[in-house]
Amino acid sequence: MRDIPDVPFGGWDPPEYRVDTDGKVVGATPGTPNNWGRWGADDQIGTANLLSAERIAAAAALVKTGKRFSLALPIGPPTPGGYRSEPLHFYGMAAGDAVLGGGPGGAAFPTSDDYVVMALQASTQIDGFGHVGGDATLYNGYWAGLVTASSRARRLGIHKLAAGVVGRAVLLDVARHLGVEHLDLGFGIGPDELDGAAAAQGVAIGAGDIVLVHTGHLEWKRGLRANDPDARTRHEPGISIRAIPWLHDHDVAMIATDTAACQVVPPDDGTPFLTWHVAALRDLGLLVGELFDLHELAADCAADGVHEGFFVAAPMPVVGGSGSPLNPIFIK
Amino acid sequence: MRDIPDVPFGGWDPPEYRVDTDGKVVGATPGTPNNWGRWGADDQIGTANLLSAERIAAAAALVKTGKRFSLALPIGPPTPGGYRSEPLHFYGMAAGDAVLGGGPGGAAFPTSDDYVVMALQASTQIDGFGHVGGDATLYNGYWAGLVTASSRARRLGIHKLAAGVVGRAVLLDVARHLGVEHLDLGFGIGPDELDGAAAAQGVAIGAGDIVLVHTGHLEWKRGLRANDPDARTRHEPGISIRAIPWLHDHDVAMIATDTAACQVVPPDDGTPFLTWHVAALRDLGLLVGELFDLHELAADCAADGVHEGFFVAAPMPVVGGSGSPLNPIFIK
Amino acid sequence: MRDIPDVPFGGWDPPEYRVDTDGKVVGATPGTPNNWGRWGADDQIGTANLLSAERIAAAAALVKTGKRFSLALPIGPPTPGGYRSEPLHFYGMAAGDAVLGGGPGGAAFPTSDDYVVMALQASTQIDGFGHVGGDATLYNGYWAGLVTASSRARRLGIHKLAAGVVGRAVLLDVARHLGVEHLDLGFGIGPDELDGAAAAQGVAIGAGDIVLVHTGHLEWKRGLRANDPDARTRHEPGISIRAIPWLHDHDVAMIATDTAACQVVPPDDGTPFLTWHVAALRDLGLLVGELFDLHELAADCAADGVHEGFFVAAPMPVVGGSGSPLNPIFIK
Amino acid sequence: MRDIPDVPFGGWDPPEYRVDTDGKVVGATPGTPNNWGRWGADDQIGTANLLSAERIAAAAALVKTGKRFSLALPIGPPTPGGYRSEPLHFYGMAAGDAVLGGGPGGAAFPTSDDYVVMALQASTQIDGFGHVGGDATLYNGYWAGLVTASSRARRLGIHKLAAGVVGRAVLLDVARHLGVEHLDLGFGIGPDELDGAAAAQGVAIGAGDIVLVHTGHLEWKRGLRANDPDARTRHEPGISIRAIPWLHDHDVAMIATDTAACQVVPPDDGTPFLTWHVAALRDLGLLVGELFDLHELAADCAADGVHEGFFVAAPMPVVGGSGSPLNPIFIK
Repeated sequence: MRDIPDVPFGGWDPPEYRVDTDGKVVGATPGTPNNWGRWGADDQIGTANLLSAERIAAAAALVKTGKRFSLALPIGPPTPGGYRSEPLHFYGMAAGDAVLGGGPGGAAFPTSDDYVVMALQASTQIDGFGHVGGDATLYNGYWAGLVTASSRARRLGIHKLAAGVVGRAVLLDVARHLGVEHLDLGFGIGPDELDGAAAAQGVAIGAGDIVLVHTGHLEWKRGLRANDPDARTRHEPGISIRAIPWLHDHDVAMIATDTAACQVVPPDDGTPFLTWHVAALRDLGLLVGELFDLHELAADCAADGVHEGFFVAAPMPVVGGSGSPLNPIFIK
Repeated sequence: MRDIPDVPFGGWDPPEYRVDTDGKVVGATPGTPNNWGRWGADDQIGTANLLSAERIAAAAALVKTGKRFSLALPIGPPTPGGYRSEPLHFYGMAAGDAVLGGGPGGAAFPTSDDYVVMALQASTQIDGFGHVGGDATLYNGYWAGLVTASSRARRLGIHKLAAGVVGRAVLLDVARHLGVEHLDLGFGIGPDELDGAAAAQGVAIGAGDIVLVHTGHLEWKRGLRANDPDARTRHEPGISIRAIPWLHDHDVAMIATDTAACQVVPPDDGTPFLTWHVAALRDLGLLVGELFDLHELAADCAADGVHEGFFVAAPMPVVGGSGSPLNPIFIK
Repeated sequence: MRDIPDVPFGGWDPPEYRVDTDGKVVGATPGTPNNWGRWGADDQIGTANLLSAERIAAAAALVKTGKRFSLALPIGPPTPGGYRSEPLHFYGMAAGDAVLGGGPGGAAFPTSDDYVVMALQASTQIDGFGHVGGDATLYNGYWAGLVTASSRARRLGIHKLAAGVVGRAVLLDVARHLGVEHLDLGFGIGPDELDGAAAAQGVAIGAGDIVLVHTGHLEWKRGLRANDPDARTRHEPGISIRAIPWLHDHDVAMIATDTAACQVVPPDDGTPFLTWHVAALRDLGLLVGELFDLHELAADCAADGVHEGFFVAAPMPVVGGSGSPLNPIFIK
Repeated sequence: MRDIPDVPFGGWDPPEYRVDTDGKVVGATPGTPNNWGRWGADDQIGTANLLSAERIAAAAALVKTGKRFSLALPIGPPTPGGYRSEPLHFYGMAAGDAVLGGGPGGAAFPTSDDYVVMALQASTQIDGFGHVGGDATLYNGYWAGLVTASSRARRLGIHKLAAGVVGRAVLLDVARHLGVEHLDLGFGIGPDELDGAAAAQGVAIGAGDIVLVHTGHLEWKRGLRANDPDARTRHEPGISIRAIPWLHDHDVAMIATDTAACQVVPPDDGTPFLTWHVAALRDLGLLVGELFDLHELAADCAADGVHEGFFVAAPMPVVGGSGSPLNPIFIK
């Protein structure tokens, strides 16, 4: 076999911090703004705390016609703009086997049983708080070292969000507001675009809202041919780090887009790639959704002028997981 | 290596039927009762057709307090009573790697990315209509041979249910009604128990309802030690084939239990193991849920006397899949 | 979710043949030449029958210096020219976890345990006889329908080859013989090139030999940049269908190349893509190896003039499998 | 969903050592005996260094009859005594699909393509040097922290052993020597048993030898019924820590047994479970094989009195892996 050169290694010095028995890095400080400690020192669900029963009850009253939208991408076809290897889907048993005398139930009982092998963030998804940290810390000061191959996420696992993201969702159609089919690659969405779209639509963003930002990017990417150079770029429009204070000031519970990274790529302020994720996940404990398919919903909202609805999205409660596929349901 | 004897093979004669270009077995007939053709010859979603916008709008009005329940089992711990190999959960990257200088984002950006390998029906789940057929046919007369390893489910894929199961759910607490912690293994729930529980609770089952039957079995099984012989039995209480006409007469959209098979095991009428599944899935096109964790919900309903709520459960839209994990959300 | 159109279906008529209790299609006939029945009606290992103890003993005497070559590609880096999704490699436990207090053995016993998810033919590999058939049959008349998702290969499983491919191997360096670094895409290697290379090297091919044909293609492909259009083509040089009688006449036990398909792609005689595989696997029961990394071995043989050696390659004995990764060892 | 309590966490203090740019823990010292530095400071293959070309050439001369044995367990049936979840084997395409009009090659070209999901140490296998370390170090002083989920084994990956384990193998039949079908659970094999068996067999162990120790345990375990309490125990006979100096003094290249752990379980000297592995893997850099099926080979050696042969076993060269399934071939 051909020799595989070792990857260079720069040496290692132990960090200078300690971690207490709560799993917190002693002396760690978050960025600004942040929600560390806001819901208690042991909080592990961040802005999901904003999804109060009262708000959910109020949001359910938004249901008028009962028309509903699944905002998920199908799992199987290539994911437009996806970062990860495509899911594998296998039939351990297939009903057709029975026709060939090969199934477990014999010819009389054709039976299928299928499996997936998939990155939990390979398709429409929600980030867990173990997904991205900054320096040694995750949300609320938990230590990044709590997430390992064998322990999984010892704190902040996605299963903490099992009760789901439920409440009032508002679609902000930034693409339509700016009069384009899709925002440019690298276009950063800041407070002006968010406020502008809300004003144009006549909606207000309130505490505990789930904000869905339509950029048109997913639909554009879906239309590209496989060999189009743009099909491979990871550049995309998205939420700017300039919008972080806005998200915090409005007490948004979840921000989601029809892009792979939610944040603009590359960042529009010259910061490193993951800085936005650190501000959103680590500092705010903000729920982040990605690869939401907002095309049909956006068209419907443009048609009837109603941009709000009742939203339910429940992750797979993988214990110690750091993300989950999501099939979000938006009901008008 | 030790010799592995070939499995015996009984020979094979080709079937006598043909399959038309719609994928239907020519001349196939369903059992009684059935919904074949009721929603069109090309219908692939069965009783999900009953989940109309009107009914969803009416069901949303059931939300009073906003209190919500996730009815999912956690994915990771052994599944009580599960039939399938346990899910595998892997971290392709773990945030802790960054502490060791090993992560893709360097020390500054600890990043996690995880994968699952799982049977789509390994935990709380919904059956797809490719899951079980009878003789050569699946729901609505589609051919069992449409489901193969390479083609996946060419019709009736779980992705057809992407819009989710949304509507009014009613918990029928058969265990409490009968005054037991959990029903006996092999106890078949028929019309009498369903009507009795409904009457005792003062609720009526209507068209398009999602019926959740609490047997107490899951909670009992969860409490067993690993080496308890009962921990391995597949016998369990469940819905009897005697309840099939009741489910059809009431136009129930979904039936789900806190057991692995939904149906009683072994069948209480001496029919083969999968006969109930054939009647429910193939003939009625009935949505079937399994391994719903109803313990906390049942206790809450017993406490406040409210057994109905708004229900949202959206499968992973695996194209051509025959089942899906589910995290059902029940909101009062 | 966006609607996923159903794939068209052309209807289905049952085949006219029967399958007997041996798993043979009644009345099936192979192409010419073929080895059906040569080693008995129930033979499932084809030309592996040629790897007799006597030949192995004779081949071991070829070992002179003890210098050895692994002909495998590494598993992990992208496979040059591979047809299948890349293997996934996961650490369920990583020794580094112990440094973070997260491993199962505590800090004192750092422990690693890793998993692969891989297509059995994703890297250097051997075809099983369930891999490709023609019409309804596999090697020796076994029915293609014996291979299903739930039954795996009920006959002809790769585990039948557990004893490995062991014997005399001869490298035929067709690229050097023709004076090129690598053969052109679509170049079909026929009897003339095989005989020519053998004559130039002064070696003779005998019964039971393992023939390794160096085309230079793998090395060329490895050198391409990822965005080179040639990196994606499946066209490659390889063994022509014109060589099938030659392989049969010489009673070759195994044919392997440094290409993904062994056969030339596209076929040089205008036949459908898999016709060569049908002739080799189904008719001859010939062992076929693919993606063998012959670059270093070929250079060594050119340098010392010795093109033969002792060869040992043992598949993973996956019961009912249709292929296996292989790490072939060639010893001089 | 039921609440999942957080696992307790004991806090974390950074280690006091540094790691140099070679990946070595500064100031680390091995146990006694050890091979650290023996083959250079950057050695990553341990006793595989003993498998010299000269020894391989000499070993090939042991081949007399050409009779060969695969020492692998089949992959698919439950692994007797295995520690890990059973491999999953899936057909992404099955030849039978073509009979149903569902295959990629149409009816004319039935095609199969299969996948495995497996722990690299789930069946007959070889340990990599990333598998077990002691305190912060792996073999030759490399840092345990070099193995992480995202980096895989940055040093000491199993791919370093791609050239395989090739040389003279000697079967030491300790069970027959002691006159038992199988050694007792917890029976530790020390120098006396090894020397005794060798003397009884009339063989000598020399430098670079591959030593296969037959305990009879695997065959006994294979014969147990699934519900036999012994079927679940991890206790087994195996190599004692008392044999470590013997293995070192004889310059054994590889030690392998027909047990799951190679070492005796529980340890016969009261040390912690993995102490033997630390001595073998970390200190000696000794190749360790497990779950070798020696039953047929042992019977053959007893019958013909020949206990030595030529041995070839080549791991799957998973880059950065810490173990590999193995199909070892022993040739007389």
